[in-house]
Amino acid sequence: MKIAIVGIGLIGGSIGIRLKRTKFFSAVAGVEKSESNQKKALQLGLVDEILNLEQAIDQCKIIVLTIPVDAILMILPNILDKVTDQVVIDMGSTKTSILNLISNHPKRGRYVAAHPMAGTEYSGPEAAVPDLFTSKMMVYVEAFKSDEDAFDLAETLTEQLEMKSSFMNAQEHDMHTAYVSHISHLTSFALALTVLEKEKSQGRIFELAGSGFQSTVRLAKSSPDMWTPIFKQNRSNVLEVLEEHIKQLQSLYDKLEQEDYEGLHKLIKKSNKIKRIIK
Amino acid sequence: MKIAIVGIGLIGGSIGIRLKRTKFFSAVAGVEKSESNQKKALQLGLVDEILNLEQAIDQCKIIVLTIPVDAILMILPNILDKVTDQVVIDMGSTKTSILNLISNHPKRGRYVAAHPMAGTEYSGPEAAVPDLFTSKMMVYVEAFKSDEDAFDLAETLTEQLEMKSSFMNAQEHDMHTAYVSHISHLTSFALALTVLEKEKSQGRIFELAGSGFQSTVRLAKSSPDMWTPIFKQNRSNVLEVLEEHIKQLQSLYDKLEQEDYEGLHKLIKKSNKIKRIIK
Repeated sequence: MKIAIVGIGLIGGSIGIRLKRTKFFSAVAGVEKSESNQKKALQLGLVDEILNLEQAIDQCKIIVLTIPVDAILMILPNILDKVTDQVVIDMGSTKTSILNLISNHPKRGRYVAAHPMAGTEYSGPEAAVPDLFTSKMMVYVEAFKSDEDAFDLAETLTEQLEMKSSFMNAQEHDMHTAYVSHISHLTSFALALTVLEKEKSQGRIFELAGSGFQSTVRLAKSSPDMWTPIFKQNRSNVLEVLEEHIKQLQSLYDKLEQEDYEGLHKLIKKSNKIKRIIK
Repeated sequence: MKIAIVGIGLIGGSIGIRLKRTKFFSAVAGVEKSESNQKKALQLGLVDEILNLEQAIDQCKIIVLTIPVDAILMILPNILDKVTDQVVIDMGSTKTSILNLISNHPKRGRYVAAHPMAGTEYSGPEAAVPDLFTSKMMVYVEAFKSDEDAFDLAETLTEQLEMKSSFMNAQEHDMHTAYVSHISHLTSFALALTVLEKEKSQGRIFELAGSGFQSTVRLAKSSPDMWTPIFKQNRSNVLEVLEEHIKQLQSLYDKLEQEDYEGLHKLIKKSNKIKRIIK
C-alpha cells in the first residue's frame, strides 16, 4: 500500500521521514509544487519519489494533505471528485470551513479531517524530524461522517506515527485551537514586533534576552504563509480570544497604573493555576 | 574566604550549590528567614551552614542578596551601615530604585549592583540547579561607583559561576529588562488567565495544548511574591512596554477584524525578523 503526502514541509516531511523508517507502507510518495523543495525532500530522504497530484491519486491508497489551509480549501473538492476507494486526510489547523465546503460532496465518506497537535516554529523540508509526532495527539473532527474503512486507514497512519487519538466536533476544535495554539502565535508575533520596534532606538536591547524571552517569542519565527490562512479561516474564534487576551493584559496594566499591587499580586497568583495544566 | 547568600530560593540556592562544587570559598553560608527553607537548603546541600544576618556580616567577605527586590530595598541600607571591608552584591531584576536609595550612603563603594540574566519559572530551594548561570550574562549596573576591590570580588563570584560580564547604567538596564524579560512574564500571566477563564465554560480546552502553548505560558508559573515588587519598582518602563505590546496586539486584531489579510501577512513577516536575534 502506497501513501502520498501533498506538501513536503515541516508536517509533510516529518510524516514522510517517519513512515520511511517504519516501512509499513510500500512507498511514500511526495507531491510538491516547489522544484527546490522536491529536490530537498529526495535528498533528505523524506519521500521515496515525487509524483504529480494525478499520479498520486491513481497510485496511492492514502492521500495526506499537509499544505496551508487555504490551499486545502482549493484542492480538496477536486481530489474528492477523482477518488474511488482511496482515503484523503487533511492535517490543517482549522476545520469548520473545510468541513462546510465538502459536507455535501458525494465522496464525503472518503475524507477524514485530522489535526496533529504537533509542530515547531520552523518550516520547509529542512525542518522535518522523524519524532515530531511521537506521543502527541491526533484530533479527528467529525470522524463519524467518514466511511468506516476510510477512518480505519487514517487510524493506521496515526498508529504508524505513534500518536494518541481524540475526537471533537468542528466548532469545538476551532475554538480550542484558537485558545491553546493560535493565540500563542499571535502573542509571539506581537512581542517580537514590540521589541524589534524598540531596538531601533535602543541598540543593545536584545543583549539581556534570556531563556524566558526566547520561550515567549520563538513562535514569531513561524511562517506567515501558513498562519495568515489559519487566522482567516478561524477568524471569529481568533478575534474572540485576542479580545479576551488584550482585556487580561489591560487588566494587569490598570492594576499597575493604579498602583494596586495587591490586585496585581492576586492576578499573578490566579495565573499560577496554570501549574495544574502544564508540568 | 567565606561567602553568604541571603535568601535561598532559585537564584540563591543555585549560586550556593554551584559554589559548593567549585570549593573556591572556604564556606558558603545561607541566611534565610523561613525555617522550612533553611532545612531544605541544608538537606539539598545548597549551603554549608545557616547563619543569621548579623553573623553573616561578621564572618563573610562577600554578602550576596538574592531576595525579592522590595526586601532588598528594606535591608540593604542596614547592611551597608554595618560593613567595613566586605562587599555586598544584590542580584535583583530592577536597579534604579535600589541605586537611588543608597547613592549617598557612606559605604556606597562596598556595594555592587548586579543582575544575572538567568532563571526559570520555578522558585524555592528545590528549584536550585548548579548550572543555572553557566555561560549566561552578569550585568553590572553603575559599576564605576563601586570600590575597585569590591568590584574585583564581585568579578570573582561571576567567574566562579562561569558567567560573562556586561555593563550598563541603571536607566538603560531597567528599560531593557522591561522589554526582554518583564513583558514576557506579563504576556504569560495574561495568557494563562485568558485560557483558565475559558476553561470554565469549555472543560476540555487544555487537551489540545502542545509545545507552542507550553512555551508561551510557562512563565505564568512564576512567583507573585517575586514579580509584584519587580513590576512596582520598574513601573514606568513596564507600563510603557505593556502599552506598546497591547498596541501591537490591537494592530493584529484590527487587520483580522477588517479582513486585511495582506496587512496581517506583512505584520507576521515583519515579526519573523526575530530570527536574526534568537536561534
